[in-house]
Amino acid sequence: MKRLTLLPLIVLVLFWGSLAQAQVRHEIHFPDLPGYQTLKCDFHMHTVFSDADVWPPVRVDEAWRQGLDAISVTDHIEYQPKKDDVPTKHNRPHELVVGPARQMNLLLPRGAEITRETPPGHFNAIFLSDASPLETEDLVEAMKRANQQGAFVFWNHQGWKGAEAGRWLEIHTTLYESKLLHGMEVCNGDEYFPDAHRWSLEKKLTMLGNSDIHDPDLRKQSSPDDHRTLTLVFAKERTLPAVKEALVQGRTAVWFQDRLIGRQELLEPLFAQCVRVAKPHLRSKDAVWMEIRNLCDLNIKLQRTGKLGPPQVTLPARSTIVAKINLKTPQEPAELSYTAVNFVIAPDKGLPVTVKIEGP
Amino acid sequence: MKRLTLLPLIVLVLFWGSLAQAQVRHEIHFPDLPGYQTLKCDFHMHTVFSDADVWPPVRVDEAWRQGLDAISVTDHIEYQPKKDDVPTKHNRPHELVVGPARQMNLLLPRGAEITRETPPGHFNAIFLSDASPLETEDLVEAMKRANQQGAFVFWNHQGWKGAEAGRWLEIHTTLYESKLLHGMEVCNGDEYFPDAHRWSLEKKLTMLGNSDIHDPDLRKQSSPDDHRTLTLVFAKERTLPAVKEALVQGRTAVWFQDRLIGRQELLEPLFAQCVRVAKPHLRSKDAVWMEIRNLCDLNIKLQRTGKLGPPQVTLPARSTIVAKINLKTPQEPAELSYTAVNFVIAPDKGLPVTVKIEGP
Amino acid sequence: MKRLTLLPLIVLVLFWGSLAQAQVRHEIHFPDLPGYQTLKCDFHMHTVFSDADVWPPVRVDEAWRQGLDAISVTDHIEYQPKKDDVPTKHNRPHELVVGPARQMNLLLPRGAEITRETPPGHFNAIFLSDASPLETEDLVEAMKRANQQGAFVFWNHQGWKGAEAGRWLEIHTTLYESKLLHGMEVCNGDEYFPDAHRWSLEKKLTMLGNSDIHDPDLRKQSSPDDHRTLTLVFAKERTLPAVKEALVQGRTAVWFQDRLIGRQELLEPLFAQCVRVAKPHLRSKDAVWMEIRNLCDLNIKLQRTGKLGPPQVTLPARSTIVAKINLKTPQEPAELSYTAVNFVIAPDKGLPVTVKIEGP
Amino acid sequence: MKRLTLLPLIVLVLFWGSLAQAQVRHEIHFPDLPGYQTLKCDFHMHTVFSDADVWPPVRVDEAWRQGLDAISVTDHIEYQPKKDDVPTKHNRPHELVVGPARQMNLLLPRGAEITRETPPGHFNAIFLSDASPLETEDLVEAMKRANQQGAFVFWNHQGWKGAEAGRWLEIHTTLYESKLLHGMEVCNGDEYFPDAHRWSLEKKLTMLGNSDIHDPDLRKQSSPDDHRTLTLVFAKERTLPAVKEALVQGRTAVWFQDRLIGRQELLEPLFAQCVRVAKPHLRSKDAVWMEIRNLCDLNIKLQRTGKLGPPQVTLPARSTIVAKINLKTPQEPAELSYTAVNFVIAPDKGLPVTVKIEGP
Repeated sequence: MKRLTLLPLIVLVLFWGSLAQAQVRHEIHFPDLPGYQTLKCDFHMHTVFSDADVWPPVRVDEAWRQGLDAISVTDHIEYQPKKDDVPTKHNRPHELVVGPARQMNLLLPRGAEITRETPPGHFNAIFLSDASPLETEDLVEAMKRANQQGAFVFWNHQGWKGAEAGRWLEIHTTLYESKLLHGMEVCNGDEYFPDAHRWSLEKKLTMLGNSDIHDPDLRKQSSPDDHRTLTLVFAKERTLPAVKEALVQGRTAVWFQDRLIGRQELLEPLFAQCVRVAKPHLRSKDAVWMEIRNLCDLNIKLQRTGKLGPPQVTLPARSTIVAKINLKTPQEPAELSYTAVNFVIAPDKGLPVTVKIEGP
Repeated sequence: MKRLTLLPLIVLVLFWGSLAQAQVRHEIHFPDLPGYQTLKCDFHMHTVFSDADVWPPVRVDEAWRQGLDAISVTDHIEYQPKKDDVPTKHNRPHELVVGPARQMNLLLPRGAEITRETPPGHFNAIFLSDASPLETEDLVEAMKRANQQGAFVFWNHQGWKGAEAGRWLEIHTTLYESKLLHGMEVCNGDEYFPDAHRWSLEKKLTMLGNSDIHDPDLRKQSSPDDHRTLTLVFAKERTLPAVKEALVQGRTAVWFQDRLIGRQELLEPLFAQCVRVAKPHLRSKDAVWMEIRNLCDLNIKLQRTGKLGPPQVTLPARSTIVAKINLKTPQEPAELSYTAVNFVIAPDKGLPVTVKIEGP
Repeated sequence: MKRLTLLPLIVLVLFWGSLAQAQVRHEIHFPDLPGYQTLKCDFHMHTVFSDADVWPPVRVDEAWRQGLDAISVTDHIEYQPKKDDVPTKHNRPHELVVGPARQMNLLLPRGAEITRETPPGHFNAIFLSDASPLETEDLVEAMKRANQQGAFVFWNHQGWKGAEAGRWLEIHTTLYESKLLHGMEVCNGDEYFPDAHRWSLEKKLTMLGNSDIHDPDLRKQSSPDDHRTLTLVFAKERTLPAVKEALVQGRTAVWFQDRLIGRQELLEPLFAQCVRVAKPHLRSKDAVWMEIRNLCDLNIKLQRTGKLGPPQVTLPARSTIVAKINLKTPQEPAELSYTAVNFVIAPDKGLPVTVKIEGP
Repeated sequence: MKRLTLLPLIVLVLFWGSLAQAQVRHEIHFPDLPGYQTLKCDFHMHTVFSDADVWPPVRVDEAWRQGLDAISVTDHIEYQPKKDDVPTKHNRPHELVVGPARQMNLLLPRGAEITRETPPGHFNAIFLSDASPLETEDLVEAMKRANQQGAFVFWNHQGWKGAEAGRWLEIHTTLYESKLLHGMEVCNGDEYFPDAHRWSLEKKLTMLGNSDIHDPDLRKQSSPDDHRTLTLVFAKERTLPAVKEALVQGRTAVWFQDRLIGRQELLEPLFAQCVRVAKPHLRSKDAVWMEIRNLCDLNIKLQRTGKLGPPQVTLPARSTIVAKINLKTPQEPAELSYTAVNFVIAPDKGLPVTVKIEGP
């Protein structure tokens, strides 16, 4: 009974502590674009200083182990339900996080959430120098003060709450035309807002995706199937000013559940960096076999739009498939036309892509 | 966001598809003893009200999803490094947890940690009615006040810290002889204290194992390979008074890493409930084959002490093996003698067990 | 930097071999019905003796570790594409499996697949005494010979292949009326056949679900999200005759992907054994809180059909939820009406169930 | 079933949603050396054509999905316990694998195992042109015939079996001095052979590590904690001749459990490619903080040999840590001396490494 007859075995002593406990960072895999670094950012989260359940430095631990590059702690200016136990101090959560963030090499723009009934809704201001002046009754005034500090300001979870929730009102036109508003959360936590997506495209507002976490985030790492909603920022370097420049210029994409959302001119080069199509390693009379490797953390879904190739292909995250492609002339180069349905360039619109088959 | 909306969000209705996100409880598997329920308890943990990083109700979420039955929030009486931001209130963390614990059906003795330099060390008092009176300079006085409230008091992480760390001093004799001290943490977090183990046996102090968590606990469930250090309490029923009675009577065991630690008279019936040896389903000339099922969350390790049976056997947690036992007379009943090396009845001493093979 | 400052640690020496390698059985969790044992069975699989890729005893290892109770090795009578390397021997695969099955305590009816063009299709005969006589040109004759041996015969993957695939033809009427055909595969591998389902109900044919595996089965254990398609057989005892009796009587259900398929009179008591609704542990003015525990390996999905309770509830496999139920009179008993949508009693029809809330 | 239909099913088109089922390749992560590609190879495995349990093409599926580049199917020449069912054909298993290997882009040297009592033991010959002539009684003759075909020949699982198991005898000297023997399995499956390791170093025999699998290999991918024993071959390109050249030149390392075994001159540049030490991102009065990234699939364990740095550091596979290093002069460059204990350059000897800290 080999079940019990134990082979000579080499004892695997697990020394140096239990890996599982230690703080370990798992990088997120989205390649850089030519000329830019792809930074993984979350600009919306809370602590016990407003309505959430963790001490501010916990947000650094979570972000670091999950492979983020930049976070902003954005407690509500107008809402502190715990204030009898944790008195209101608008700048305190950021200050408590500065040291840990520096040690873990995370970028940390100072942030706050300007919290009004919906409509007009909630707005995050990041790259502030002082959050306190935002405490003022007049929303436009609060937005002006944020902008005077050089903040980047975006409308949060646009479709959220109330009878008129998510409508674009006069106040939004005012903010937009005065250039006090620079971006939109296209995704917040588990929600996607098609209107925010559409307006971002129409009005050239920067697209953002953030977690808005209140609970402790239990994820040990980011994975294709379980990650927080993030903003990919295509920055010239890994510095705060470069992050801000990229936000102002709209060089972002949103990693939301099983898809990326962004402008076509950014998703196109990103797709090119993510997918490696090898030269066919085998050709028969009527087919070629070739390896296709997906380097990124997204299970890329392709739907055929041309006549060649299988109707649907999934390229699993960070792995390789062998594709057999039936062709009349397998000794010649060919091009396959597909839509990358989860590289989303507009509501319900995937990125058109071409898969090139090399000749021998 | 949701925090603002769904305010009293306790309902754990799991909408289809969102299983991963939702609160789900995974039971811990240690069988009941005849006449007793096996309750899984953690009587040592902290919040932002002393030196830890979570808002108190987080401790309920963690404990509930990990399958615990009882917890005690035991913030330090003498140590609040966050008091400039979270002013000292000794009873407040417990009060904040009462509602959530009731909704999730967790038992919640009120607790506090009496925190002195080592030696003499730290002590937890649980089943308090009011934590505030424990704030007094004289340690013996603090212990007396706890006892006057009917508290159960134990010495925490005995081997911990300082030149004289963990020594049994006159003060401990005083506390012990005055019956102000009732138990010892044999294990705390990742540490095991052999002296505490030995003294518990010698002095009939109740053995405890607790997590002493300060960070958010990221575990979604308890598993044989990844669980917090716990106290199993063998209680007459699942009520607070029954937990206290069991603690006072010393009916506990400690689940620490890959082992259970406890008194022989308790581990013996527990082993009997955990392991099911079936009647052999096959007999050859010189062997029998039989199924052995382990119902508990421990990978039980057996070492042969007699002459029959394989020298070493592992019974993996919550699974079944088929054992082939070579025997001269496989048609007759037999008994195999083993030590269950990770049912620990004294430092470095496993539980002697007998595996009975039934006749046809 | 605590990341590198290592705590005193307790080395976890993993002795007694690497658990991962060893053969360990993980039971499948579907409770017994009153008076019956719930046996987990797969009556359709192949080996190198027909068109599959494993040596027959591999099928025992797979089935045992995945928690099955009975399997049948059913190589094709009429199709041996490997016969130049592995000469045809109809009884050989079964014979090679007898010894291993006996050692691992698996039930093993002798089987074979009668393989004809579709229509009329493929048929499995199990509980044969000799597979060789089934090699005959006339399908009806082959079926007769199987029946003469006392075999239980079912139509495999009914909807499969060819222009007329899956149609009920005269030949099927002949077989059915002569009582040569006793069951239908309602599910085969990843496929579900609604027609087979409907005919099973109409014609009182026994419902089966089988894997039809050809590759090695890589699953180490059966889980709610990853298990082979199985037949649950509700047998009076765990013996071959009892399995046959249950099959003849139609006492089966099919575990397919995320659902159970079976007759209402069987799924009803099974649901009752799977779900434990505790008495409410908390009552407010307008709600009760109660624990609901799901003991089985299915994520049970409930859809409200009455007026009380949340519209949809998922009871995750082998775990517990706390449900908050809003009620006008929480001090009185109440009944909630739901459909268990993945306890399937007819194509597109879930099992009606009632959740009873006890009074105080 | 599908086997009958989709006959040449090699196309690994992954229809959406069925990811879990499909064939996906997960690369193994050991970086290339300057001038060489790091190929992952297993040159020892069996099929139903000798004493194992799978049809030969299964070995291609396993190897491909686990990220291997080259395999050799090496059934025993002198041992076919299944020959009554599967008649002996020495070249057949290789031939059956050629097509699948070509489609999946795996390198496939033809192999066989020359199987003698121990001592002298078993020997694998790979890069054969015809396995049949190896069937001859005289071991030296068999080895000569293999060499005449240009084969690379190595001694398998040297320490294995019998009273004189694993001894270096006159016959080995003969083989070695006649240059008929070129390598040693330092590791085979779960076993490590220190003598083979020592002799490889002393006699400049090529080190190999192979799986010697007989059962189906259940691993879906290779991971740091669960992978087959492999030979890393540092080849000039990914071709059969380049693999052979590297083997002949001894450019290999063995990935065994939690360690790499190889010559210092190869492990040194491999370590350099695996570990990235960033310039410190923070300097205090007495410490620096810096990121260390481990790019490979090994949890690298470092033990301090100098005076600076923490005594022990683990660099978890494919992740990043932040190390805080206490230094008297953190504004100046520094060097830390460590041993990489699981980069094994001789029995019980780890690789000396230096971690350089850059100045500002």
